[in-house]
Amino acid sequence: MRRVSAALVHHPVLDRQGAVVTTAITNLDLHDIARSVHTYGLEALYIVHPVAAQRELAGKVKEHWTTGSGARRIPDRTPALQKLQMVDALDDAMAALGSGAELWTTSASVRGESLSHAAGRERLAGDGPPVLIVFGTGWGLVEAVCERADVHLAPILSQRSDGYNHLSVRAAAAILFDRLLGVR
Amino acid sequence: MRRVSAALVHHPVLDRQGAVVTTAITNLDLHDIARSVHTYGLEALYIVHPVAAQRELAGKVKEHWTTGSGARRIPDRTPALQKLQMVDALDDAMAALGSGAELWTTSASVRGESLSHAAGRERLAGDGPPVLIVFGTGWGLVEAVCERADVHLAPILSQRSDGYNHLSVRAAAAILFDRLLGVR
Repeated sequence: MRRVSAALVHHPVLDRQGAVVTTAITNLDLHDIARSVHTYGLEALYIVHPVAAQRELAGKVKEHWTTGSGARRIPDRTPALQKLQMVDALDDAMAALGSGAELWTTSASVRGESLSHAAGRERLAGDGPPVLIVFGTGWGLVEAVCERADVHLAPILSQRSDGYNHLSVRAAAAILFDRLLGVR
Repeated sequence: MRRVSAALVHHPVLDRQGAVVTTAITNLDLHDIARSVHTYGLEALYIVHPVAAQRELAGKVKEHWTTGSGARRIPDRTPALQKLQMVDALDDAMAALGSGAELWTTSASVRGESLSHAAGRERLAGDGPPVLIVFGTGWGLVEAVCERADVHLAPILSQRSDGYNHLSVRAAAAILFDRLLGVR
């Protein structure tokens, strides 16, 4: 079984016109994805944001639920929110995992070469270096990040004939963790 | 293939001490679960709330994204948010599905008799009456609702040995729709 972590990227990501932007941190992303990360046995959730004030904001949320009054009120949140690690850039998350770590990217749209979730599940169950599964906020990761990835995961397809593929990043991360790492 | 809808119940649900309470509507529940509902081909998402002002609030959110300025800014939200139906009580959602509709409840904890997700998937793929899959907010549905259910679905289990089972309702709904209805 390989060590797996996740990253939520706020820059560089796309906006709906395809421009490269920096998105703001969403409080419920931190909670929902950290809870899913903890449930599925991932090691950490890296929150990637280049703006110090935004990283500090996420740090205060983490503190509230791990050592502050939130931790006393809802202790179940503590082990999940402890998984949060705030970093400036994706490279910092990769560096934290150690040399040889693999970058696995995700997107909502079909790309040329991508790994099926069943094949991804098999790879994670075997031996190998740590893996960082990366999600983009906004309209998704920029092409340059997907291009440097060791693996690009297939999108979660809808059975709708109109090709609707607009899950929230919170839902998409939960579904992907379940497909890659869920108890069967 | 059976017709499937979902309901998100704000009353009667449990708080963390096990008391029966009414929870407030959370904006991102509406967005995330409606987007998952639409992606997985469910017909409607019933928001069950006994307080008129709360139903009106959800109605305004729906309006903003289906006919208001939100719909012009992010048109992808429109078909998802159109699935929202605000009702006073769970019985109103059941009545909307027609007589003979089945009530399927969910919870995060293991109950005596429950249907596995694989078996639920098979049942939904066959013929039969419409199904309403019900999620509780807060600390989950009250026992009386689970007792009257035609089917109680098994919980989403973690592979953690400590039995941690604290997914957000947004994540749990997404995972369950994927297991029951996702493209394989």
